[in-house]
Amino acid sequence: MTGPMDRLRAATARREEAGLRRALRPRTPDHDGLLDLASNDYLGLSRDERIVEAAVRATREWGAGSTGSRLVTGSTRLHAELEDRLAAFAGASGALVFSSGYLANLAAVAALGRDGLIVSDAGNHASIVDACRLSRSRVVVTPHGDAEAVTKVLAERHEEHALVVTDAVFSVDGDVAPLRALHEAAVRHGALLVVDEAHALGVVGDHGRGATHAAGLADRPDVVRTVTLSKSLGSQGGAVLGAPEVIGTLVDTGRSFIFDTGLAPGCAGAALAALDLLEASPGLPARARERARELAALARRLGLETADPAAAVVPVVLGPPRLALEAAALCADHGVRVGCFRPPSVPQGRACLRLTARADLRSDDLVVVRGALTAVAELTKGPSRGWDR
Amino acid sequence: MTGPMDRLRAATARREEAGLRRALRPRTPDHDGLLDLASNDYLGLSRDERIVEAAVRATREWGAGSTGSRLVTGSTRLHAELEDRLAAFAGASGALVFSSGYLANLAAVAALGRDGLIVSDAGNHASIVDACRLSRSRVVVTPHGDAEAVTKVLAERHEEHALVVTDAVFSVDGDVAPLRALHEAAVRHGALLVVDEAHALGVVGDHGRGATHAAGLADRPDVVRTVTLSKSLGSQGGAVLGAPEVIGTLVDTGRSFIFDTGLAPGCAGAALAALDLLEASPGLPARARERARELAALARRLGLETADPAAAVVPVVLGPPRLALEAAALCADHGVRVGCFRPPSVPQGRACLRLTARADLRSDDLVVVRGALTAVAELTKGPSRGWDR
Repeated sequence: MTGPMDRLRAATARREEAGLRRALRPRTPDHDGLLDLASNDYLGLSRDERIVEAAVRATREWGAGSTGSRLVTGSTRLHAELEDRLAAFAGASGALVFSSGYLANLAAVAALGRDGLIVSDAGNHASIVDACRLSRSRVVVTPHGDAEAVTKVLAERHEEHALVVTDAVFSVDGDVAPLRALHEAAVRHGALLVVDEAHALGVVGDHGRGATHAAGLADRPDVVRTVTLSKSLGSQGGAVLGAPEVIGTLVDTGRSFIFDTGLAPGCAGAALAALDLLEASPGLPARARERARELAALARRLGLETADPAAAVVPVVLGPPRLALEAAALCADHGVRVGCFRPPSVPQGRACLRLTARADLRSDDLVVVRGALTAVAELTKGPSRGWDR
Repeated sequence: MTGPMDRLRAATARREEAGLRRALRPRTPDHDGLLDLASNDYLGLSRDERIVEAAVRATREWGAGSTGSRLVTGSTRLHAELEDRLAAFAGASGALVFSSGYLANLAAVAALGRDGLIVSDAGNHASIVDACRLSRSRVVVTPHGDAEAVTKVLAERHEEHALVVTDAVFSVDGDVAPLRALHEAAVRHGALLVVDEAHALGVVGDHGRGATHAAGLADRPDVVRTVTLSKSLGSQGGAVLGAPEVIGTLVDTGRSFIFDTGLAPGCAGAALAALDLLEASPGLPARARERARELAALARRLGLETADPAAAVVPVVLGPPRLALEAAALCADHGVRVGCFRPPSVPQGRACLRLTARADLRSDDLVVVRGALTAVAELTKGPSRGWDR
């Protein structure tokens, strides 16, 4: 009989062979002295003193933890205030805060879409894919960004109810979903539309109110949004934004809401302060987007495959996982930390570097990036060293 | 055509009729002036100044958020230190920290149990149930606490590999799983054993090292533990404890690890300080357990149905959801906040109050509790007011 540890070791050896091992590399506070083009801290707020001190004040007033489920003792007035402010900021009628964006997506999609049809974009985040599995619904995955395919699936459905779900800004490709066309399809066929604004909130649209707001859909009752507090807001946590019927349904039946400990007060305080800052600094999101366009232009000039960024995410597609790994290491040698995405995070053969812009990048930072990307471009033109395995 | 909002409203009306609506009641920092017997803050550490100031220092040093996935920029040296300390505290060879215990359970069970057989106790936490659904495995639910049933299912299996999963201390009933018998069954049949120590860490065993440690199983490579940082440790987050093969598998394939933002530094700092405190104060967990036994004795003397608490959770079973709701309101009128658990958190017909003990409860607190429970006992003896609907 093979023991359980033998089985895990054998599977690990197979991942090793496929170039799919991953390693944790704990960093220092200053990102090991490297220029950070890898985090989701799009506005540079996680280290902003105003955000940090708001977290400090909330922790001292409310404690280090929320002490229980939001339905028992884990709802504080601070959580309620954050929910009111998130809803107001994004033009939604209500909000519900979770301890992570992953859990917000699980609840929104699984509880609202349960026992029906869910139509999900092929590029959607892993948390949405998991939520679909939890929903006990028939799930149809449509080609990336294809609103016509969504319409067709909805028109041919036999289920009583349906839900369409999409990332607003896709986490690796960085493009924006066709939200108006998706909403039109949803309305025509009586479906809910769920939009994950994780990479759009704080970056896309006026004041960073997100892609749904920019598309003029913020006040539609049949549009549900999920957001995270851990990217542009520099904190941790997530939320669902929607009509009272939506929020009520999640409070009553959202398993990852009911059975999880409420968000730590310090994280709630930090997110509140970040919303204050966004209201007061309308230029901040535009600056992040401008820096992203500059990064993409730089990559393109060097002959690398990239796309026009709609938000702050800039992909550089390389193909084989081992090439992507080597390119990421080369960037670090040149002083730049970039993300390296391999299957299953991206489709087979589409391993890439993921560069993220931040509003606080300076012009001399871009000079450093040019050095790193130049080395990557040379690497891709050189002889292959077994990358295609 | 019924619109999506009509459908949600109709479902909400059905829950209303069944007495299954839930409401958020945001509290003040001092729990609205009530005695807190509802939180999971078993050692009273969430407001402890040493824990709070550790969160403050970590937030100032590392920022309000971790800025990305643990595999990109979300692993700091603080996370690595917490992982080393958690493993050392619980006698495990390694640990992996998540942003919530819910997500730790999803990864441990779904990634380690994938495409095999999972044997899961009927009383397991919702996050384990969800993890089973995500695993794509055959799932067999065995009667609560029944190691013989587990053995039988393992013996008759046709899958190549199997995983047995159980809460260490059950979240509502408060009893302990038969860990040695379960481990024996797992070993005999080449299965992994996953134990969720959420309600045991910091409460059960020497220094609060948990139920697995107390059962002498801490160093077994085929035993995997999950813990939360949000209960006895007073913070937020979760972790998986296990052998290097286990940790490596989760780093490579745990979806709720790979695709989630790393735990906020403040929460990591608070949990580290709580571990320091537990090492220095061996009497703390025993005090919480002693208080729980006193609460149960009090309930029993008043004729209420309860159980011998193995940790800090004391259930008072009432039956109909509406009776439980009224009893919880009555406790609040008498100055005590208790948890009120109704289906689907508990089986149909087993709605209950859930009292949690804390190490810092004083003798005069118990006098207040006696007043509240006396009123509950009288309520159950009075005429039914439509509770059975």
